Amino acid sequence: MPTLVSPFLDDLSAAVGRVATDEATCAAYSRDNAHVVDPQVPHAVVFAESVEDVQATLRIANMHRVPVIARGAGTGVSGAAHAVKGCIVLSLERMNRILAIRVEDEVAVVEPGVVNADLNAAVEPYGLMYAPDPASFRQATIGGNVATNAGGLRCAKYGVTRDSVLALEVVLADGRLIRVGRDTFKGVAGYDLTGLFVGSEGTLGIVVSATVRLRYLSPELRSVAAVFPDIATAAAGVMAIARARVQPAIMELLDSGTMEVIDAIHGSNLRARGGALLLVRLDGHGARIEEALVRQALAGLGAQMGPEDDGEAELLIEMRRSSRGDGQDDAYRVGEDVAVPRSRMVPYMHTLERIAERQRVRLRIVAHAGDGNLHPTFWLDPREGEAGLGRLDAALDESVRAALDAGGTITGEHGVGQYKLRWLGWEQQPEVRELQHQIKAVFDPNGILNPEKAI
Amino acid sequence: MPTLVSPFLDDLSAAVGRVATDEATCAAYSRDNAHVVDPQVPHAVVFAESVEDVQATLRIANMHRVPVIARGAGTGVSGAAHAVKGCIVLSLERMNRILAIRVEDEVAVVEPGVVNADLNAAVEPYGLMYAPDPASFRQATIGGNVATNAGGLRCAKYGVTRDSVLALEVVLADGRLIRVGRDTFKGVAGYDLTGLFVGSEGTLGIVVSATVRLRYLSPELRSVAAVFPDIATAAAGVMAIARARVQPAIMELLDSGTMEVIDAIHGSNLRARGGALLLVRLDGHGARIEEALVRQALAGLGAQMGPEDDGEAELLIEMRRSSRGDGQDDAYRVGEDVAVPRSRMVPYMHTLERIAERQRVRLRIVAHAGDGNLHPTFWLDPREGEAGLGRLDAALDESVRAALDAGGTITGEHGVGQYKLRWLGWEQQPEVRELQHQIKAVFDPNGILNPEKAI
Repeated sequence: MPTLVSPFLDDLSAAVGRVATDEATCAAYSRDNAHVVDPQVPHAVVFAESVEDVQATLRIANMHRVPVIARGAGTGVSGAAHAVKGCIVLSLERMNRILAIRVEDEVAVVEPGVVNADLNAAVEPYGLMYAPDPASFRQATIGGNVATNAGGLRCAKYGVTRDSVLALEVVLADGRLIRVGRDTFKGVAGYDLTGLFVGSEGTLGIVVSATVRLRYLSPELRSVAAVFPDIATAAAGVMAIARARVQPAIMELLDSGTMEVIDAIHGSNLRARGGALLLVRLDGHGARIEEALVRQALAGLGAQMGPEDDGEAELLIEMRRSSRGDGQDDAYRVGEDVAVPRSRMVPYMHTLERIAERQRVRLRIVAHAGDGNLHPTFWLDPREGEAGLGRLDAALDESVRAALDAGGTITGEHGVGQYKLRWLGWEQQPEVRELQHQIKAVFDPNGILNPEKAI
Repeated sequence: MPTLVSPFLDDLSAAVGRVATDEATCAAYSRDNAHVVDPQVPHAVVFAESVEDVQATLRIANMHRVPVIARGAGTGVSGAAHAVKGCIVLSLERMNRILAIRVEDEVAVVEPGVVNADLNAAVEPYGLMYAPDPASFRQATIGGNVATNAGGLRCAKYGVTRDSVLALEVVLADGRLIRVGRDTFKGVAGYDLTGLFVGSEGTLGIVVSATVRLRYLSPELRSVAAVFPDIATAAAGVMAIARARVQPAIMELLDSGTMEVIDAIHGSNLRARGGALLLVRLDGHGARIEEALVRQALAGLGAQMGPEDDGEAELLIEMRRSSRGDGQDDAYRVGEDVAVPRSRMVPYMHTLERIAERQRVRLRIVAHAGDGNLHPTFWLDPREGEAGLGRLDAALDESVRAALDAGGTITGEHGVGQYKLRWLGWEQQPEVRELQHQIKAVFDPNGILNPEKAI
């Protein structure tokens, strides 16, 4: 470790007991689940156990001008938690207490390190749920969900993380503690600082507690799995459900390549049955009525559906969570999470096919079809070797550009992090980017909080 | 008009054709529907008809350091559109075109002067609705709704204005035009500037177009009107509906005083039937099932309900929109829109009764019970004369303080404007207020946009 940082580490260790500087820990906490653009290792990892730990860490880091990367479970896929040069990592995973569950108010108060699934398990006995459910919900923390404004499968109906966060306690860059938002469902006093912190990827302050709104756990769930000959017909099914004025809790669209991945992992025979799969979950007291409407709408398009309540659809929804290429060599696939207006989904998917052909790479697509949020994956057989990697990257760039051309965004739910900064200027005009940097300077004048990320 | 401002007005009139400086127009545009704290008359009213008009107005005002108060229909009740010393008023009411309705994408793009009800009428043929519905929806503009983050009756289920706004075009204080947000349902690129503008009451920029999400117009509406002996039992009914895991589209709670007002206006006999009224509207495909659950839950508490589908409940919901004291002398009533956690509604209503007793003023309450958002009104017989006005104000202050003590907020949906600035420091710590002023300085370094409002 450079001697330069020693006075800082001395101050830090004196103020916060749980500071690791060993090579193994620093390496393990150097990155999240995204591709690494600029490999760095932190000088230390602080394991905060209290608000005071976070305050002391930021106060000292700010004094010494040392960058601080806050981190939950490290399940992010955009590099927001990647280490940067000369930084420390501030792990919030030990601040994992559920501070309150107020059943009648339908809210919970949690520390940032509470795992999404653990909160859901804790409120389930009361017939409640915490709605945002990113695919990583069994590992991901609420703090990380807040930092990235995480989405998930259920957000077509229940909204993204922002829609479930009522109030936040935040430690500012200089160590001061503030509270923003309110404990009530509604409130409009002053600017929406809560919304500003949600999705800011640890660049404006460190969330040390969140008051979240809970939703009703549905008394009834009905799911439909519909196999279509091709993706265009399946997408027509999405529109037919909308025309039936049904708002599904989950509506996932899987192409043939994704069906093959599921078949390979689970030994199923989806691909043999058709070329696209639409998974729809209905909830609420009207779930049965809505199921009938959905079946009617999809049958009219020639969908193959199993009998009601055969359990297959629920099983497939669980399988879909593992559909993004587990078991395949990470180095040979690139994936994104663009979103486009719903009417543009089919033309956009055709554009993706053309891009894959032109770049001679393979393609598969899953989409949160209710939101127009697509996760295309371009991939290559690893036997092609590194020569193909440039084509993967080119396909990815073209796919992002095409999403913008279709009136979309570069990121529907994963966040910009470090990895997507290269595209942000394609989406946002210079004035808008400059305003964000000026806002960052208000909150973090010395630029110590997750620098060069998110904006 | 002071000669001081003449060079400014000359510049302005040269750039924007529709500038009124006559006394009658300036007086008519000097205030919104709130009490006037500091009476002022603008130097001029600009009637913008295009984005360019707004840009020119701000460019010139910024150059001359003249405050600009943006204004929609002037239906606000917090004084956000009140004139301030030396200002001009920028009316957006003529920018009232619906620019696009994208049925398959379920979005509309509107100019700020589009009236809420007009947008709803335009999308209704497609089976869609714009969900936020403040009581003033027949006059209020979408621009004003955005400026105040307006709520309404339906927001228990469908969220407030923020939840329906996807993207905004905004003219900054120096006249530059930016676009924030995106045309897709989901998107997390960069900070949530859209959320920052929504509810900022014209202090950060002037919205010149909004892309809003539309929701499904329900194929079925079922409503229940339940009369209870007292407000505490009616509030228990709210909790019983929650325990039945039913999320009503509308759930309004009216006390005996409000029932008397409705009786006086409409010749009904509500007050004779009981001491509190709960109005519940169910929608969606499960509306009938939910109606049965609601009736069962409320019957268990001794509620009197008419037969199904007798139309009375829907009629009463319409009457409720006119329940805040029309026909009574405005000078002798004060009303607020605090919100408290739902479990605190009944204790808070008892506190309000004690405050009214202590201050010897009359009280009535309506509440958006689904949100814990209460509109208590304190009032006096005008024959008491001005001597009573101090007691009204004291009761109001005490009621706001009590809402905060109950874990609530000073404003659930009306906004801070000018009128509620006196309470904002009760709710927000100095650091939080300072951050908001610094954010304002980023967007409006010369402080010309609606100064001394909102924050």
